Amino acid sequence: MPRGYAIDDTSKWTDFKVIDFDLKPEEDDDVTIAIECCGVCGSDVHTISGGWGELAVPAVIPGHEIVGKVTAVGSAVKDMKVGDRVGVGAQVGSCGTCFPCKGGDEQYCIGDDATGKSMVDTYNSKYVDGSIAQGGYSTAIRAHQQFVFPIPDGISNEDAASMLCGGLTVYSPLLRNGAGPGKKVAIVGLGGLGHYAVLFAVAMGCDVTVISHSPRKKDDAMKMGAKDFIATGDEPEWYKRFGRKEQPFDLIVSTASSNAVDVPSVLSTLTVHGKAVFVGMPEDPLQDLRVQHLAGNGCALASSHIGSKVEALKMLKLADEQKIKPWVEVMPMSQCSIAVKRVHEGDVKYRFVLQNDFEKKD
Amino acid sequence: MPRGYAIDDTSKWTDFKVIDFDLKPEEDDDVTIAIECCGVCGSDVHTISGGWGELAVPAVIPGHEIVGKVTAVGSAVKDMKVGDRVGVGAQVGSCGTCFPCKGGDEQYCIGDDATGKSMVDTYNSKYVDGSIAQGGYSTAIRAHQQFVFPIPDGISNEDAASMLCGGLTVYSPLLRNGAGPGKKVAIVGLGGLGHYAVLFAVAMGCDVTVISHSPRKKDDAMKMGAKDFIATGDEPEWYKRFGRKEQPFDLIVSTASSNAVDVPSVLSTLTVHGKAVFVGMPEDPLQDLRVQHLAGNGCALASSHIGSKVEALKMLKLADEQKIKPWVEVMPMSQCSIAVKRVHEGDVKYRFVLQNDFEKKD
Repeated sequence: MPRGYAIDDTSKWTDFKVIDFDLKPEEDDDVTIAIECCGVCGSDVHTISGGWGELAVPAVIPGHEIVGKVTAVGSAVKDMKVGDRVGVGAQVGSCGTCFPCKGGDEQYCIGDDATGKSMVDTYNSKYVDGSIAQGGYSTAIRAHQQFVFPIPDGISNEDAASMLCGGLTVYSPLLRNGAGPGKKVAIVGLGGLGHYAVLFAVAMGCDVTVISHSPRKKDDAMKMGAKDFIATGDEPEWYKRFGRKEQPFDLIVSTASSNAVDVPSVLSTLTVHGKAVFVGMPEDPLQDLRVQHLAGNGCALASSHIGSKVEALKMLKLADEQKIKPWVEVMPMSQCSIAVKRVHEGDVKYRFVLQNDFEKKD
Repeated sequence: MPRGYAIDDTSKWTDFKVIDFDLKPEEDDDVTIAIECCGVCGSDVHTISGGWGELAVPAVIPGHEIVGKVTAVGSAVKDMKVGDRVGVGAQVGSCGTCFPCKGGDEQYCIGDDATGKSMVDTYNSKYVDGSIAQGGYSTAIRAHQQFVFPIPDGISNEDAASMLCGGLTVYSPLLRNGAGPGKKVAIVGLGGLGHYAVLFAVAMGCDVTVISHSPRKKDDAMKMGAKDFIATGDEPEWYKRFGRKEQPFDLIVSTASSNAVDVPSVLSTLTVHGKAVFVGMPEDPLQDLRVQHLAGNGCALASSHIGSKVEALKMLKLADEQKIKPWVEVMPMSQCSIAVKRVHEGDVKYRFVLQNDFEKKD
């Protein structure tokens, strides 16, 4: 029986308990995976600590950056077989019939009233039959083939894992908004998401600037390939540089997960009709934003939700071809409590990956 | 000497006084115009009543939907000559050298430090030499040829006037965001801007839905060519229709000038990666908007500022070819006080145009 590290009380969100759990019943499209490692995402902390609301299941096993080996496939599964190295990101199910699902945007599934099927997040979520979806701080997972991605041979388990949510979440808005040679792109915040945004935007040929509160991550940003670094705490009027003096940004990807970033200032550095895509999800509403802040340059404030399978496969291909090396710190899964605590404190450069050590411990 | 109706105290914003004023000094690119009529824009009311801040000049003559006849042209003026019928919208100057100006986006001028030149609004604004720009509730205006638009013979003065701000403000985001056959477009608010948005979106071939608080403008919306009308006051959960049951919107143009509209609900009715362009400018910040509200469908909240000369000419051509007939109520300019009061109260269907009666009154 699969086992995993679970939280059942958001007030004790570092107090993981090992629980046994059932995988969803096997269907023709399902892939069953023996988990080898799992990244630790900021979403894990938001969820188990109750920042995004109460738990939707009695005990949640977090983790949605999963890599492992296929142990079983349903009869309808194509392109994957037992023994393959595969990954799962932040989604394990969708209705398959709504217009986003049919249009290759399954990450925006709106559900189907006829079947009752809808979006199933990798954890803290339920299938239409009542089965609980549990995440990757565990020994096994089962998911519809649409949400299982073959991992190219050139990418290690530990490097691939955190790409599957953290990487994809920033790669998708870069890809969909024309990131490429000649484009000037700003990445706000250099955490797990931000570090991927820099790596991918550089790999896509963009001229990348990192915007961060303090200067302490400047060296890292430059090593990742950024051309410029702005420490807003040291330069309160930093945004006034752009426009008259320096070329404004074509695209901004904000990965800040708090509202400390001053949104109107960030928006003012965009070119005419430029776009800022916020993929960090602060727990509070945006502060003091007026329509007027968007009118001066006719810009857009947008968001984006993970990415599709097509985008995940493109991202993995790019990472393989360009030998993109994420900055990850690997630790045993049994230390997941330390990992989530350190993510909460921002003490990670830039992503933890937990290696399954259940067998060794058992 | 030109004369106009001015406000010098925002607390007495219906108390117009007739003043004499000087036009800006004539330059080679300038066109001087004898004003025949001028539309009344919501911006006029926001400005003279202090809703957008204190007055920038001692006494402001509002009005930026101006039609008249050319009385003089500078030596560099092309395509216009004395006697031509022309119009002026909400902008009369820009630096001419910044990247938006050079790129045909002069409505987003960011200014040029070398010359000191920058955006000059049609009223409540100053040129770099200190000249005051006064608006169209007056007998004459002078503007750089970039901001003067020849009016096609097929459009009357009264029909053309309010297109030049109200029309252009909604035409530009429709044009730039792919409005056309097969596109489902929602227009939020049916006032002066909203009525133009419906007329133009219909003329561009879109399937148009009007979203308004009360049902009282439904008949008008349908006469303008809308296919559907939603009275949100009568159907509090109106937004839940879209997605599963009805096709969501490709594009939303919100013309609401108050924050009464619930932004998260409006955004939820967009298709995946759809865009809502807010051109109404409420005086208060957006309320309770979270990044999460943009993530469900990966949508964008944008704004837009009037339109360029290229867009103005395209709009006038479309209006001429398709015989677009705005709904305007014409009154003498000497009744501007009544007009602004009625605009403030929303008592207009759907735009006032003031006819210059200075000569008759003098």
